[in-house]
Amino acid sequence: MSTSTEPTATAERSSERSAQERKEPTYLFTEKYVAEKSEIARRFLDSRERLNANVDKANNFLVKRFYNVDHNTYLEGALPAKVKELMGLVASTCLRCDDCIFYHAIQAYRLGVTRAEQEEALNVAMVVGGSIVIPQLRRAYELLEELYG
Amino acid sequence: MSTSTEPTATAERSSERSAQERKEPTYLFTEKYVAEKSEIARRFLDSRERLNANVDKANNFLVKRFYNVDHNTYLEGALPAKVKELMGLVASTCLRCDDCIFYHAIQAYRLGVTRAEQEEALNVAMVVGGSIVIPQLRRAYELLEELYG
Amino acid sequence: MSTSTEPTATAERSSERSAQERKEPTYLFTEKYVAEKSEIARRFLDSRERLNANVDKANNFLVKRFYNVDHNTYLEGALPAKVKELMGLVASTCLRCDDCIFYHAIQAYRLGVTRAEQEEALNVAMVVGGSIVIPQLRRAYELLEELYG
Amino acid sequence: MSTSTEPTATAERSSERSAQERKEPTYLFTEKYVAEKSEIARRFLDSRERLNANVDKANNFLVKRFYNVDHNTYLEGALPAKVKELMGLVASTCLRCDDCIFYHAIQAYRLGVTRAEQEEALNVAMVVGGSIVIPQLRRAYELLEELYG
Amino acid sequence: MSTSTEPTATAERSSERSAQERKEPTYLFTEKYVAEKSEIARRFLDSRERLNANVDKANNFLVKRFYNVDHNTYLEGALPAKVKELMGLVASTCLRCDDCIFYHAIQAYRLGVTRAEQEEALNVAMVVGGSIVIPQLRRAYELLEELYG
Amino acid sequence: MSTSTEPTATAERSSERSAQERKEPTYLFTEKYVAEKSEIARRFLDSRERLNANVDKANNFLVKRFYNVDHNTYLEGALPAKVKELMGLVASTCLRCDDCIFYHAIQAYRLGVTRAEQEEALNVAMVVGGSIVIPQLRRAYELLEELYG
Repeated sequence: MSTSTEPTATAERSSERSAQERKEPTYLFTEKYVAEKSEIARRFLDSRERLNANVDKANNFLVKRFYNVDHNTYLEGALPAKVKELMGLVASTCLRCDDCIFYHAIQAYRLGVTRAEQEEALNVAMVVGGSIVIPQLRRAYELLEELYG
Repeated sequence: MSTSTEPTATAERSSERSAQERKEPTYLFTEKYVAEKSEIARRFLDSRERLNANVDKANNFLVKRFYNVDHNTYLEGALPAKVKELMGLVASTCLRCDDCIFYHAIQAYRLGVTRAEQEEALNVAMVVGGSIVIPQLRRAYELLEELYG
Repeated sequence: MSTSTEPTATAERSSERSAQERKEPTYLFTEKYVAEKSEIARRFLDSRERLNANVDKANNFLVKRFYNVDHNTYLEGALPAKVKELMGLVASTCLRCDDCIFYHAIQAYRLGVTRAEQEEALNVAMVVGGSIVIPQLRRAYELLEELYG
Repeated sequence: MSTSTEPTATAERSSERSAQERKEPTYLFTEKYVAEKSEIARRFLDSRERLNANVDKANNFLVKRFYNVDHNTYLEGALPAKVKELMGLVASTCLRCDDCIFYHAIQAYRLGVTRAEQEEALNVAMVVGGSIVIPQLRRAYELLEELYG
Repeated sequence: MSTSTEPTATAERSSERSAQERKEPTYLFTEKYVAEKSEIARRFLDSRERLNANVDKANNFLVKRFYNVDHNTYLEGALPAKVKELMGLVASTCLRCDDCIFYHAIQAYRLGVTRAEQEEALNVAMVVGGSIVIPQLRRAYELLEELYG
Repeated sequence: MSTSTEPTATAERSSERSAQERKEPTYLFTEKYVAEKSEIARRFLDSRERLNANVDKANNFLVKRFYNVDHNTYLEGALPAKVKELMGLVASTCLRCDDCIFYHAIQAYRLGVTRAEQEEALNVAMVVGGSIVIPQLRRAYELLEELYG
């Protein structure tokens, strides 16, 4: 659904202050470290990298803008990056997207989130989303086992 | 799901060419005209304006960025704006969002889309989305009746 | 998603046998009776009749075909009509469509389904669909109270 | 969505009567028998067992509670277990979860549901859910062919 | 989708430790206070109370069990209650349930969550869920304005 | 949700005129050509053919009727077939069905749709559907690369 009739470049500039408040989170672990620890993570990260290279090559203006907004969503801000990665995990589990679950569970792990915290996030998704999310839950637990086990 | 690790401002600049190719569509009718023709449209447009004013006041950086990407999606481009508004109508009907349906059906009307074209778009949504979209279909037909009847 | 490349009229004819096995169910109660018993049912049935009249007037070929397939789905067959109406109730609750829930709960009632059976169908939907369906569940119980209370 | 402010242990006790009315269904076939008859079923059941073992090991309190509610949903009650397994099949097909479809189609088979009954349940899901469920329908028919063919 | 073949009462007992770790959160504000501050909140809370009374009266065993699991999900635990209420908000927004959004936004407010934190949670939902959630976003901002404005 | 109380064979006949206006589109490329050009397309088309053969064998009356309605939806009409195939692509991407995306992207390619047009359709789906559709977007771009690259 479209939204406002006259979004302007000026409008974006006026919130520079908010932009400054956001910053990249500090990761405790690299993607490479995670890929060595977990075979599920490695397969996911490899496939994502290969497919994203193809999307990047297409150089589609709106895809790049969307990826940029997406990237900014999970930076440190009013809420810590790790909380927002866990929120991404909850949303991905409710909406039942395995790739998205793997992405956010790995990001949360890299930011130092504990296994108990990941499980509580998955519990919110399970109760909100119902038994239809259980196949995702099972695969998420398999990843958690490889990461934290 | 987050997307790429290093989106940069430079990346956005490199597609200036694509940006130039997009342009605002030419509307045959104003929102005011539509609101006078259809009571359903009027109620929707009034409520949307009132609620958007409140969102604008919050001045949230990411909301504004997202609205901007959203706005750019429906401009004239490789596909005519009217085709993309009808695509927005199909997506909104499949995902069963009455407000989104009203928005795109009105936009399509303002761009000169015929009733038969709107009905064919709704047919795609009905067949893809199933009988669960029939309540949306009924309300869409009520709006079409007011706009074209 | 489209489906087969060459559907033919002949193909439809070849299953005349199956068509004969289906037949209209016998309703214990008329819609009028239900509308007098329950205010929620009355409002839903009136609004549905009014909006369907508008759809009928449009005389859209594919809408009529789709309505016809839909109608045939709930006839007596290998499964009793009342079981299929309850399945429609489960699907409608999982997919969170209030109008669809009202429709199938009323149909089930008209076919003699008990309140306990309706509640068990709603339980399947609640467990499969999760807490996000609870607002629908609450409104369904309000209707059940008016119909059976 | 959370639900009531003060659920108590006592509240649960008060419905012991209802609990007594539910009982385990009688299966005509074991999972082992089904796995020998159908390769699709065997792969699904093996993978589910392996992944569930991992979830069980985590011993998460709320997951166990949820699994327990889920298990109770499909017992014999006001509706026969086989009708509720078919309802689970309808819900799983509408919500497009292959694993869930395999699970409920196998359970229904084990309880003596006929192929014609399974097909009618799938028809309800197809009409409610639309052509987007056709990939699931195709895979469900492949399983039915192995089980009943 | 059903889950494990033999859930036992004993299984539940073995995690008593986890159960002890959870506890009710401390609310800074009562529902009554919120209802006086916001007309949207008041209407939602009144309607929810009235409809829940009707569900409670039905005394359905599985509904009560489900409500109980749901209630336990949002207690203080490995993650603070306020983070889990915000996760409930994200899930509710992605899945586009106005009642659920109102519920969790109110709960988060009662636990002392700031407006900036609520907006960041809504941003995660907006980016994950897309423009189809914008009607929900608009109504959520209207509630935030009444609560914090 | 069921729809109208008395659909009749006569009702269908009355719209023969509309039926005559629809006609099969002219494909620039055969499925065989596409399968030779793209490995992803080949695997999809082979698997779809194999599974559809199994569905056809079952000869289910309502499945055939539904496939027929589905087939008619994408014929030349008030909107060109290629626009409707792109609408099918948008709907499939929003609803996140890889098989359906492959089907409609291939159909659009066979009708002469350009890569830029396919990307714009995917952009509408990405903005309406949010980041949760990005895994689908990546796989769609992989197919586009094989078809147009």
